[in-house]
Amino acid sequence: PQQADGKPAVHPACASLPAHQCHHALVNKTENDRLARFESSIKRRFDEIVPVLKEVAALGASRDFTEQANRLAEQHLGHPFPEGVLERSWIHGVDVPTLYSSSIFSALAAGVEQFSQRIHQEVADAQSLDALLVDCGFHAINVSACADGRLKGLFTYILRLPASDLLRYSTFAGTLFDVEDDILDWQAAELRRFREGYPSTSDSGTRYLKVAVYHRSSLDPMHQGCAAHQSNEKLAMEAALERLQQFRHGIENAFCCGASTDILLIGLDTDTDAIRIHVPDSHGDLSLFRSVDNAELYKKTLGMNADQARLAIYEAIANVSDVGGWGQGDGKPHDGMRRLIANLLINNLSQIEYVIENFGGWYPDRGHGERFMSIGDGFQELQVRNLSYYAHLDTVEEGAADLDVGVKIFRHLNVEQGLPIPMAINYRYDANVPGHRERIIIKLQRVAAAIQARYSDLLSEGMLYLHGSVQNQKLGSPLEEVPLT
Amino acid sequence: PQQADGKPAVHPACASLPAHQCHHALVNKTENDRLARFESSIKRRFDEIVPVLKEVAALGASRDFTEQANRLAEQHLGHPFPEGVLERSWIHGVDVPTLYSSSIFSALAAGVEQFSQRIHQEVADAQSLDALLVDCGFHAINVSACADGRLKGLFTYILRLPASDLLRYSTFAGTLFDVEDDILDWQAAELRRFREGYPSTSDSGTRYLKVAVYHRSSLDPMHQGCAAHQSNEKLAMEAALERLQQFRHGIENAFCCGASTDILLIGLDTDTDAIRIHVPDSHGDLSLFRSVDNAELYKKTLGMNADQARLAIYEAIANVSDVGGWGQGDGKPHDGMRRLIANLLINNLSQIEYVIENFGGWYPDRGHGERFMSIGDGFQELQVRNLSYYAHLDTVEEGAADLDVGVKIFRHLNVEQGLPIPMAINYRYDANVPGHRERIIIKLQRVAAAIQARYSDLLSEGMLYLHGSVQNQKLGSPLEEVPLT
Ligand SMILES: [Zn+2]
Ligand SMILES: [Zn+2]
Ligand SMILES: [Zn+2]
Ligand SMILES: [Zn+2]
Repeated sequence: PQQADGKPAVHPACASLPAHQCHHALVNKTENDRLARFESSIKRRFDEIVPVLKEVAALGASRDFTEQANRLAEQHLGHPFPEGVLERSWIHGVDVPTLYSSSIFSALAAGVEQFSQRIHQEVADAQSLDALLVDCGFHAINVSACADGRLKGLFTYILRLPASDLLRYSTFAGTLFDVEDDILDWQAAELRRFREGYPSTSDSGTRYLKVAVYHRSSLDPMHQGCAAHQSNEKLAMEAALERLQQFRHGIENAFCCGASTDILLIGLDTDTDAIRIHVPDSHGDLSLFRSVDNAELYKKTLGMNADQARLAIYEAIANVSDVGGWGQGDGKPHDGMRRLIANLLINNLSQIEYVIENFGGWYPDRGHGERFMSIGDGFQELQVRNLSYYAHLDTVEEGAADLDVGVKIFRHLNVEQGLPIPMAINYRYDANVPGHRERIIIKLQRVAAAIQARYSDLLSEGMLYLHGSVQNQKLGSPLEEVPLT
Repeated sequence: PQQADGKPAVHPACASLPAHQCHHALVNKTENDRLARFESSIKRRFDEIVPVLKEVAALGASRDFTEQANRLAEQHLGHPFPEGVLERSWIHGVDVPTLYSSSIFSALAAGVEQFSQRIHQEVADAQSLDALLVDCGFHAINVSACADGRLKGLFTYILRLPASDLLRYSTFAGTLFDVEDDILDWQAAELRRFREGYPSTSDSGTRYLKVAVYHRSSLDPMHQGCAAHQSNEKLAMEAALERLQQFRHGIENAFCCGASTDILLIGLDTDTDAIRIHVPDSHGDLSLFRSVDNAELYKKTLGMNADQARLAIYEAIANVSDVGGWGQGDGKPHDGMRRLIANLLINNLSQIEYVIENFGGWYPDRGHGERFMSIGDGFQELQVRNLSYYAHLDTVEEGAADLDVGVKIFRHLNVEQGLPIPMAINYRYDANVPGHRERIIIKLQRVAAAIQARYSDLLSEGMLYLHGSVQNQKLGSPLEEVPLT
């Protein structure tokens, strides 16, 4: 591909592209193949919808229209169209927006089911993740990223972290996460340690780790960076770092007895999925100018055997602590932090090669290409790049800015093409708390009504379709569709 | 006064009224006098506003109008009118709505300051309250009541509980409190015990107590009960009890290792301020039909000396556990719970007599008579009956029902009289958390904008005035006025 200035791009990790693909010794080839099958089968469900609808629209008002249309749907989408819609086609023509939206929601439900099966495998992996975390000195990891759909594969693909009770994930436009919410989560994690000794006892000295992920585009940094920060990478980094520091100092100041946490800042190149990790110093402090670039590491360690490469990565992490100038810090982070960073970098090497293998090094969709908008607690089981624009919100009043960004993206992606915006609202409940499911459904309906009021123009034009579902908070629980009113 | 059926009312605690006032041995006369001075001085600030404005309006367009008006204001309200408003009076006449609202907000600020001075005394009292609580086996009390203004004096007057870090207070129309919010509060209180050993260590076996307060009117039960439950006392009791049980079972089910809490249900007669306490059984379970009525206790123990009366109260609490029929439970609550109930009943005896002394036994304002609407975290330092209608809310989207109830009340109280609705939004921040004050101000401005949008008709008619303030969460901190945009 070309860079924004028209020159042919040089891949930052694998310079021999496009002629020759690279193969790094530390890459998990089997997992890459498995993930590629997942991504393509999930996306195929979504991406076949428009071609099938075009065929259906072209069928004309034949006698067996309904049967033919449903046959096409069954064959390509795996399910018939909802009853009644096709039958009314002879009056005003095929109701494409309704068929489109219902097909998107069916693809979503099928995708969640497919991933939920995967979850059982992940839960097994998670046990080794939990062990690694505690071993590295952490009893919880709370990751906040940007709501941008290009970050939607963060855990499953980019960082290769299995779903786990110790991992918490939320997204906000521009990574402007909710400090107060996270202080509550910190309290819950601490209490679990004290009451249950899980995953480590309170006297074990493990820490809570808060991670913020910002993003940039190496191919087109001025246009395809973080929209919430006008594609200004420095602003995106600074904003994420400022929230991290507010969180850390908030806990230190508001709680007595030496309450402290670790923080970590990660940058993502959304074109190559290569990450950059900012390495804390011995006090846990971060700098925008002290980081390890994983694309460089991939390139540098290419051709080494696994042991050599692993050693080189540990050395790179250790060496970055010695940088001077603006990036200067005071010493190295603790041993467990260095080990965790090494693990994340090694995991991400597989993802860099995944993009090389499957997309020639750079994703073809540089910018937005989300299939639907995800609102609420999100579909935690379904993590694939550019599948959805995800806005975590409890009320439209608080989340309006994030929603507006998403709607703006979808006006461009869908409405300008004549297709409606599919919005899937999903909230999780705790089946152990009496009445919680009922209260969550009321909350979902309140949020749906507020969305309908905010975008009443789109709604009345038939350009907005909502779908409501709840899920028990246990990972892998089935989606339960609920009425919106 | 008369009952709703026109018959003369018989006071449930002091039958000799109106001829003779009663004097109970356990009543704290000094404190009653102090509280009476507080109530009348606070309310006078508010209630002189309309008469002063009438005088100002009658002054006419004399040459020294501004000076005369400000002299009246200084003399009766303690402060001049805001600059510029009077000066423009010669154009369209006196802007009474603006003078009215600004005077209400000044009275509010002065009242908060007056009470904040009192807080320092209370903080000393709170230490003995904290000791009593821990002694009774509790490490935190979380009280939820109805938003109705007649309950606004709950802690300071009705239950005589000083402000304390161990007390948490929230109000919702119909006492429909937020179970999930309270589960978070439970976690915070537990964590404090584990981390700081405050106010009791984690192995001390103390408990978290959740209290719900419903209300009724003995004079006019069908019209002046809880509006959110159509003045149906049974519905009000049941709703509060259901939430209590959801809270209790939620914690038992969602947390392992024998997590448990105590619950308590209290009914208030808003005409006499006499309470009724539902006494738990040995399992902590409550019944709508097993309670101790404090008006009856007052009457029964009138004429006894302090020791006899105290003993009779303990006996009444013990005896109610033996009731059969619908109120039957399994045994007595634990000793500390009985002691806490006795303390609350004894405290409330003073309040019953306070209403007898100062208002002849029954409040003259049976129904609504709130002076302003309080939105957000409320003015915790300013607890006086019918001073404000208080809606605890973080977003208008979630709190719309409570807001609408308040606005309906004030349409009747103020707008029908041609006066605007004064709404004071107040949120507390934690000065220890960096950036929290700034985020809270943004939140306040968001809520203000949502209120203005919801009641745009009132706003454009000049019938809605908003006031914004924030306060550090430390009790007794000054109000800091903040701009609404
Ligand atoms: Zn972004
Ligand atoms: Zn949230
Ligand atoms: Zn009520
Ligand atoms: Zn709240």
